[in-house]
Amino acid sequence: MPLVTVTRLLRFSAAHRVHNPALSDEENTRLFGKCNNPNWHGHNYSLEVSVTGEPDPVTGYVIDLGLVKRIAEREYVDLVDHKNFNLDVPFMAGTNPTSENIIIACWRRLEPALKPARLSRLRLWETENHYVEYEGR
Amino acid sequence: MPLVTVTRLLRFSAAHRVHNPALSDEENTRLFGKCNNPNWHGHNYSLEVSVTGEPDPVTGYVIDLGLVKRIAEREYVDLVDHKNFNLDVPFMAGTNPTSENIIIACWRRLEPALKPARLSRLRLWETENHYVEYEGR
Amino acid sequence: MPLVTVTRLLRFSAAHRVHNPALSDEENTRLFGKCNNPNWHGHNYSLEVSVTGEPDPVTGYVIDLGLVKRIAEREYVDLVDHKNFNLDVPFMAGTNPTSENIIIACWRRLEPALKPARLSRLRLWETENHYVEYEGR
Amino acid sequence: MPLVTVTRLLRFSAAHRVHNPALSDEENTRLFGKCNNPNWHGHNYSLEVSVTGEPDPVTGYVIDLGLVKRIAEREYVDLVDHKNFNLDVPFMAGTNPTSENIIIACWRRLEPALKPARLSRLRLWETENHYVEYEGR
Amino acid sequence: MPLVTVTRLLRFSAAHRVHNPALSDEENTRLFGKCNNPNWHGHNYSLEVSVTGEPDPVTGYVIDLGLVKRIAEREYVDLVDHKNFNLDVPFMAGTNPTSENIIIACWRRLEPALKPARLSRLRLWETENHYVEYEGR
Amino acid sequence: MPLVTVTRLLRFSAAHRVHNPALSDEENTRLFGKCNNPNWHGHNYSLEVSVTGEPDPVTGYVIDLGLVKRIAEREYVDLVDHKNFNLDVPFMAGTNPTSENIIIACWRRLEPALKPARLSRLRLWETENHYVEYEGR
Repeated sequence: MPLVTVTRLLRFSAAHRVHNPALSDEENTRLFGKCNNPNWHGHNYSLEVSVTGEPDPVTGYVIDLGLVKRIAEREYVDLVDHKNFNLDVPFMAGTNPTSENIIIACWRRLEPALKPARLSRLRLWETENHYVEYEGR
Repeated sequence: MPLVTVTRLLRFSAAHRVHNPALSDEENTRLFGKCNNPNWHGHNYSLEVSVTGEPDPVTGYVIDLGLVKRIAEREYVDLVDHKNFNLDVPFMAGTNPTSENIIIACWRRLEPALKPARLSRLRLWETENHYVEYEGR
Repeated sequence: MPLVTVTRLLRFSAAHRVHNPALSDEENTRLFGKCNNPNWHGHNYSLEVSVTGEPDPVTGYVIDLGLVKRIAEREYVDLVDHKNFNLDVPFMAGTNPTSENIIIACWRRLEPALKPARLSRLRLWETENHYVEYEGR
Repeated sequence: MPLVTVTRLLRFSAAHRVHNPALSDEENTRLFGKCNNPNWHGHNYSLEVSVTGEPDPVTGYVIDLGLVKRIAEREYVDLVDHKNFNLDVPFMAGTNPTSENIIIACWRRLEPALKPARLSRLRLWETENHYVEYEGR
Repeated sequence: MPLVTVTRLLRFSAAHRVHNPALSDEENTRLFGKCNNPNWHGHNYSLEVSVTGEPDPVTGYVIDLGLVKRIAEREYVDLVDHKNFNLDVPFMAGTNPTSENIIIACWRRLEPALKPARLSRLRLWETENHYVEYEGR
Repeated sequence: MPLVTVTRLLRFSAAHRVHNPALSDEENTRLFGKCNNPNWHGHNYSLEVSVTGEPDPVTGYVIDLGLVKRIAEREYVDLVDHKNFNLDVPFMAGTNPTSENIIIACWRRLEPALKPARLSRLRLWETENHYVEYEGR
């Protein structure tokens, strides 16, 4: 049976500060530059959620992408949209909100919530000039 | 010798109805929602056709992308553009035209037509918010 | 006081057939080509709704764009999304659903519904290669 | 002599809170919803700076767009990029940073700085779903 | 009768050198920087051709956009696509191919060719970060 | 430890001629069509540089994307931007500048320069309708 990957995009806007509190202010400035602004800055994030599987012979769907959207909104997007990643997001507490750490934390929430469907890839755009990808490995 | 993947995008507009005639109307509505509208709806589809191989030492091409375009138009795009996937496309007859089933049927037409070049991936965007991918496995 | 124009985009997918029933089939084919397919085709439409006015000194808004979205959905998008412009849309009955006629009919619904705000421009993309604009004149 | 409009795009990322301190918290929540989050949120902004004039017969330019970029960066983008509109931007102090108020304040900085060239339009995208325009009137 | 503006996009790729032969090499370098490279550089241009008029009561079209495309290709795009603006384009001979001069020359070819339809605006993107507009005035 | 792929986009504009000097003019025309124009043509290229690794526990970065940008500019983009691939780029001398050959040459420059980070993928868009990918194999 053929294996198809289906992807749903979701968008959200959030504030953050790239900052490691274990380091000095000077070190934070050196490492993170303008992304370390203590008064925050923010982005329009775009998240691509991919599920891989065989299309169901009855529906022709690997998974209903409306369901992917609802799960991703309930488990992730509604918790971060128009929020501050450093202050408002319990499952990111104590984590430096780089794109890398954001996508790993997102995986940990969406992977179990999408089961029995198999989450196979997340892609997160922070600006139109850079993005990160994670496949759970 | 290096293996490079080259990709050509093609666009088409088509109508469809996501519908399984083996199910009741109620079941179709429950499963497919507004995509089951009996009077059809439609999309601007964007199809990415990828071929993988070693660049030819004479041309520097894995394959002439103009040839990929001509084959993809002749074997696929010209048969679906400004058509109805449920009514007008013989090789989709009896198939529920979800994105998953559309991309599998597209593979079956393009994979032999592109030989000896190796079709390695198809990606099909149905809207700017979702897409499907198939690698022939 | 400064005049600012604010714009909200909305997206919908619909089927249509460009067709004038007062003309012969041959004439329809000659005029409209593949857009005249009797089995329909469809598009992902993108609609830009613009309102012009002075920002309110209390809110800093010309108009809450969330309100523009809700009005545009209730009065227009919900009536055409995943529908057939020729069969399903009462206020287009008897009208050939070219982009030009679609945008004029859209204006006639949104202009009064947005009052007292002033609708100043509609832009409608039918594909990524063409769009139409109307300013109510 | 022909009048041509030339436009340069610039991008920046910033945090903000849509908030009127003269109103109660309840009123702010009612008016601004999730945009009123006290811990801020943010966006990738895209700014289009347009200058209208006759092309110079020696250069063929209305204005060197590299100069537009440098002026816009020095006078505006460098002051707001990776900043908080409410806390970090002196010329927005006491102003509710809606897109409308942001674009008016931007005009007041760029219009004199670009002289003798004539700034004719600013367009500011806050997300890919909404933008504002101002022509100085 | 309502006035609607309809727009067709066309794309082409061309080489050019921004250069004024009446000036010294030093002056050309100072004015045009890397755009003055004697060995050329190039762009993917995107051209938006707008026609304004009343929709025809028989067709519902201001003008058939397929006709706009054919005229724009025959009169302009086919003469510049995969060409060098300085060397290959007779109607640009002796003209410094800035975006401003390109769009004015394009207008002079398309405006008469589209008659009796009324060309109302050209927009030319040279990169995704800048564009020019001309309305024939 | 999780493996994340981070990607930075860079853009440049260049001229080229697809041409194999070992072949006759007729053969070059037959193989490369309008891309063989002796007076060159050009493109806006978009390059995606991907690095795969474990996020550093101190920074939360696989690699600072600002560093990726600086290395890619110094080692590649600054050498090709506003240049002619056939005439101006020493490391492409004697190489037919197809997208395939461009991306392989780019890999050979960036892969050692990014060490100890691991370059995992390059993607190069030549127009919005085609792109090539290379993973170093």
